[in-house]
Amino acid sequence: MGVPDEHIHPVATGVAAQTVAKHQEPQDLIFYAGWFCPYVQRTWIALEERGIPYQYKEVNPYKKEKHFLEINPKGLVPAVEYQGKALYKSLILTEFLEDAYPEYKPNILPKDPYTRAYVRIWVDYISKTIVPASMRLTQAQDPEKRKEYLQELLNAQRKLGEQVKGPYFLGEEFSLVDVALAPWIVRDWISVKHRGYRREDAGEAFKNYADNLAKRPSVINTSSDEEHYIPIYDRYLRDEAQSEAAKAVRQGRDIP
Amino acid sequence: MGVPDEHIHPVATGVAAQTVAKHQEPQDLIFYAGWFCPYVQRTWIALEERGIPYQYKEVNPYKKEKHFLEINPKGLVPAVEYQGKALYKSLILTEFLEDAYPEYKPNILPKDPYTRAYVRIWVDYISKTIVPASMRLTQAQDPEKRKEYLQELLNAQRKLGEQVKGPYFLGEEFSLVDVALAPWIVRDWISVKHRGYRREDAGEAFKNYADNLAKRPSVINTSSDEEHYIPIYDRYLRDEAQSEAAKAVRQGRDIP
Ligand SMILES: N[C@@H](CCC(=O)N[C@@H](CS)C(=O)NCC(=O)O)C(=O)O
Ligand SMILES: N[C@@H](CCC(=O)N[C@@H](CS)C(=O)NCC(=O)O)C(=O)O
Repeated sequence: MGVPDEHIHPVATGVAAQTVAKHQEPQDLIFYAGWFCPYVQRTWIALEERGIPYQYKEVNPYKKEKHFLEINPKGLVPAVEYQGKALYKSLILTEFLEDAYPEYKPNILPKDPYTRAYVRIWVDYISKTIVPASMRLTQAQDPEKRKEYLQELLNAQRKLGEQVKGPYFLGEEFSLVDVALAPWIVRDWISVKHRGYRREDAGEAFKNYADNLAKRPSVINTSSDEEHYIPIYDRYLRDEAQSEAAKAVRQGRDIP
Repeated sequence: MGVPDEHIHPVATGVAAQTVAKHQEPQDLIFYAGWFCPYVQRTWIALEERGIPYQYKEVNPYKKEKHFLEINPKGLVPAVEYQGKALYKSLILTEFLEDAYPEYKPNILPKDPYTRAYVRIWVDYISKTIVPASMRLTQAQDPEKRKEYLQELLNAQRKLGEQVKGPYFLGEEFSLVDVALAPWIVRDWISVKHRGYRREDAGEAFKNYADNLAKRPSVINTSSDEEHYIPIYDRYLRDEAQSEAAKAVRQGRDIP
């Protein structure tokens, strides 16, 4: 028995399928991924940006299979196995890749301690403000709530936009802020279609930034065909999704 | 005009007052602190553990004074000014201190990449599970909700306790997990007094761990006299506190 969320398309498609095909050989680092998952895409973008050797393994996290629960007891993707030991959580994994593979360039965390902390402040902002606002908007059923959450999302994005140097958050350098946000940018067509969202309503700075993120090769190369995301997001749009994150949003709890 | 939260005792007392007195000289690093704040105490413990030179400046964050808002536009303590630039957020600050002062030993983040990530996973757990559960318990007015939240807190603490090597999280080494949790341990007498909480109900492993954290000199040296915390926590216990965190808990939003 499982939740309906488990009936998702089983594998990556489109450009992402080609990226998967290139990463089938055994490596020190096994990347447990779900092709559809925005958190997975963060870690995946970091792997691709830095050319770190990894073996891609597709997991359906809703099935909570025994082998996967031994890797990540929370049963969430992304997770990695590195020299026989397991780790999980998208942002912690990207920091881990910086620490374990310092020689793979370009790094996505700047060297300068002040700039690193500045990057972490805005990554935290994305996790605590933009991602929850966007989930609330997707899951909201009441028209008044939708209006309120749309405004919250736009305000949060505008504020981030004001900090962007362009083309990326820090300027020419692609950093963890860009990695943390990009997966939600390439999924924003869902709110465009169903929730009246438009990038330009978050201001020109944010719109330009979002457009640049969507054009980044590592972002494109880790994105599947739109049609396969639709049944997954339909369940969020009807507020029927049973993922840990969807339940947390419904209960007003921190997203795990 | 301000919120009643701003009428807090103005300065650190007891042992913490002695620590403050030793850190009045100008330094490269200015530490903007509120003596009462558990988030402040995290960064403060890290500074004390590592012997980093800092100048302590007391701020009442509820007053939202103009000078302080220029340091941290969110108006929250802790914040630091380092060579004229400002940073904030307790855990980001402790990571910043690791990056900016690598030569001050002992480090609170282990060198090994895997162990670092393991530490960050459990720090994240504390932030997303233990801290919110403890705030919900403190603010809950309904007896049924109090029971539910108490159980949640105990379960969360028990789970952490199962990972503890002892005497500290990683064993002999004092790490960021200990730093992240300790301020809530030395404030748990509030829930003991008012919410029926007992450390031992979270299991022996957790109780021993909590007892060890409370005895750590850096934790003691950054704690003020209990009596001055009381009026502050009374407002939380009546669910009247107007802090950003208290409001977030009330609304079911992520704690900022
Ligand atoms: N905070 C986690 C979130 C990961 C997450 O929620 N992944 C989802 C897929 S997008 C998952 O595995 N869900 C399975 C479930 O909720 O049961 C991270 O940053 O990695
Ligand atoms: N997540 C922040 C939280 C800091 C925080 O909430 N500080 C409180 C005092 S304990 C504050 O400054 N509150 C002022 C307000 O809420 O207006 C951190 O880790 O530093």
